[in-house]
Amino acid sequence: MSFVRATYYVETPLTLEAAAEALASEQSTGTFIAVPLETAELKARYRARIERIELIETRSRPTLPGSRPASGSYQCGFVELAFPLENMGCNLPTLMATLAGNLFELSELSAIRLVDLDLPDEFAQAYTGPRFGIQGTRDIAQVYDRPLIGTIIKPSVGLSPEQTAVVVRELVEAGIDFIKDDELMANPPHNPLPARARAVMRVIRDYADRTGKYVIYAFNISDRLEDMIRHIEILVEEGARCCMVSLNWVGIAAFDYLRRNCPLIIHGHRNGWGMMTRAPGLGMDFRAYQKIWRLAGVDHLHVNGLANKFWEPDDSVVRSIHDMLQPLFGGYFAMPVISSGQWGGQAPDTYRRCRTIDLLYLAGGGIFAHPHGVAAGIRAIREAWEAAVAGISLAEYAQTHPDLAAALHHFGTARRGR
Amino acid sequence: MSFVRATYYVETPLTLEAAAEALASEQSTGTFIAVPLETAELKARYRARIERIELIETRSRPTLPGSRPASGSYQCGFVELAFPLENMGCNLPTLMATLAGNLFELSELSAIRLVDLDLPDEFAQAYTGPRFGIQGTRDIAQVYDRPLIGTIIKPSVGLSPEQTAVVVRELVEAGIDFIKDDELMANPPHNPLPARARAVMRVIRDYADRTGKYVIYAFNISDRLEDMIRHIEILVEEGARCCMVSLNWVGIAAFDYLRRNCPLIIHGHRNGWGMMTRAPGLGMDFRAYQKIWRLAGVDHLHVNGLANKFWEPDDSVVRSIHDMLQPLFGGYFAMPVISSGQWGGQAPDTYRRCRTIDLLYLAGGGIFAHPHGVAAGIRAIREAWEAAVAGISLAEYAQTHPDLAAALHHFGTARRGR
Repeated sequence: MSFVRATYYVETPLTLEAAAEALASEQSTGTFIAVPLETAELKARYRARIERIELIETRSRPTLPGSRPASGSYQCGFVELAFPLENMGCNLPTLMATLAGNLFELSELSAIRLVDLDLPDEFAQAYTGPRFGIQGTRDIAQVYDRPLIGTIIKPSVGLSPEQTAVVVRELVEAGIDFIKDDELMANPPHNPLPARARAVMRVIRDYADRTGKYVIYAFNISDRLEDMIRHIEILVEEGARCCMVSLNWVGIAAFDYLRRNCPLIIHGHRNGWGMMTRAPGLGMDFRAYQKIWRLAGVDHLHVNGLANKFWEPDDSVVRSIHDMLQPLFGGYFAMPVISSGQWGGQAPDTYRRCRTIDLLYLAGGGIFAHPHGVAAGIRAIREAWEAAVAGISLAEYAQTHPDLAAALHHFGTARRGR
Repeated sequence: MSFVRATYYVETPLTLEAAAEALASEQSTGTFIAVPLETAELKARYRARIERIELIETRSRPTLPGSRPASGSYQCGFVELAFPLENMGCNLPTLMATLAGNLFELSELSAIRLVDLDLPDEFAQAYTGPRFGIQGTRDIAQVYDRPLIGTIIKPSVGLSPEQTAVVVRELVEAGIDFIKDDELMANPPHNPLPARARAVMRVIRDYADRTGKYVIYAFNISDRLEDMIRHIEILVEEGARCCMVSLNWVGIAAFDYLRRNCPLIIHGHRNGWGMMTRAPGLGMDFRAYQKIWRLAGVDHLHVNGLANKFWEPDDSVVRSIHDMLQPLFGGYFAMPVISSGQWGGQAPDTYRRCRTIDLLYLAGGGIFAHPHGVAAGIRAIREAWEAAVAGISLAEYAQTHPDLAAALHHFGTARRGR
């Protein structure tokens, strides 16, 4: 018999054992009173099992409101449950209803967070994971020996298709590997996706014809399902190889459908993720989240970046990158997307702490605001990564690399420049 | 020009004005450095406008981790923004990326919560709302003068299709109006949806043929898109009129597709919602959430119940019911679904505080654990609602209604029985 295993961080005014019982019951066979067909045999087969309980500490105040009874002592720790696969089958929305459903509402808990999950092999039969992933993306970009360097079209909104193409032309001529739409920009009246695709892909095809270098552009298709399908067809016709999806707001079922019906790389944007993770006692860890989306087949997934402009500490970002580079079902690798306030200055720490170049490294201001221009901005980031991988300090490498030197001078003083 | 308006609860180590600027910038034209095509004209047209800033109080400690700079003073209050509709068009996933995207990650904020939103009429052209809603559900159930009384099949998992049908037979013979699958039960190996639909609908059709009363059964179709479509076809063939969807995990795009391609009532289960709302300084209020799902076309939407077994206080539940009964685009009414620990004892307070009978009132133990049996359990709930609407106390009404008297005796002492 196969099981789905899930680990929760739990805080409770009860004992951890009682909290684990409440969790296991609510999310499997639970009935608050015995009902006629609820036999001991049925419970033995379908009830979630408590696999592990680990007390960490006791606190004097509840993290979340609404727990009962009021108490002066709250036990905190980890609870691991095993759910029989037979309860839900290989059905992602119902897996989520089981692992991340009503349990957040339990009054027996004053903190509840899904921190990890482990799925049985049957899920790998049903969900085949990323179509392209890291290797497929590298094969299209023809970049193997360093992170892919990318950027975001800015301003986020307001540009016409033709203006977008002007920005894209500057970027591809400057040597960029990857460009993406902003998540706020999908198919608005002032920049409809079909017109943008035509204008942008003309530039990218033209550059590829002249130089042999194909720049990947992630078009944000997030929309109604039929519009996404129609836009994918247009992208394919135009020779595009990548689309972008706002994962949380397109949702799992439509994403899974796209994965199986879309021949493009799917760049996964996690906007809205902060809502699920920023309150320490609620929601879920990225470790669990990224497994769900890799299973569903995302090819790239945003992880923030070191010294970012958002709330997330570096340790959390490093853990996210590490988690994404662990195999799932022996593979299912998706490319971590580094972004937010990046300019190359973060390359040494990122490499030192993560020991990987399998990254899509996005910079906005780090490219556009380089004092020598966009091409120099891109070169400076590449140079920063060369130095990082070679174990040479940026200051030393900058002595022979003027674009890196200019970046260090311009962004390095602020240390948080973008 | 049309605008999407959104109100946020915000806490910040900066001033509320600076926090509002950060929010407006990040979620519209924002670039951290000026880029060539970011003109004043473009900003004037596409930038989110700050409509209102209301300071409530100042706190000494941040609610969420990761805000900058460290401070001894955090301003709290409301910020209302207006986003030009032209930025996103009538595109629900991109609307959400705008209203509930990266903003939760801003380091300028130490609390951030979407509390309300107001959409321009253009959205009503694109999204036509509930197909059935309150009136359509009443017309199918032929129940007009009281809440619909419903229940959930328990145990949640483990029953076979035949066992499910046995429970359903008992319930329909006992006079139930509505029955639903549990959210943990969709299409598992031990109870595949097609077999369950055949077994259950045979009972419901038979009862309708004999008595003229059609009992609505909400089959949980949450699954891959193609499986949902296939299962809807089976449900239609079997004469079913309602399906259930785990809204957060099926997701907006697939749900919207179902709304336009599914002839059934869609019963919306909000499992996972606790993750979005239970931390007071993060996520969103139900007031905003229910507008999104009514726009997308949900016919029924769970709101918890008074004196529930979960964490949510009564005031919050009352506000949810109130919000759902406010018109959206002049209508778009969906039926609030009351559940969790209900037995009829909550009817007087529910009616007194909400002044409505347009509810789907679900009870589990409140029906199955009634000392005189299931039929008496259902009658007792109806009687409790008769008393509530008539303004008669349950104790007084129970003097002439023995099933209510038994319920009062059995559940009333515990006061939180189910």
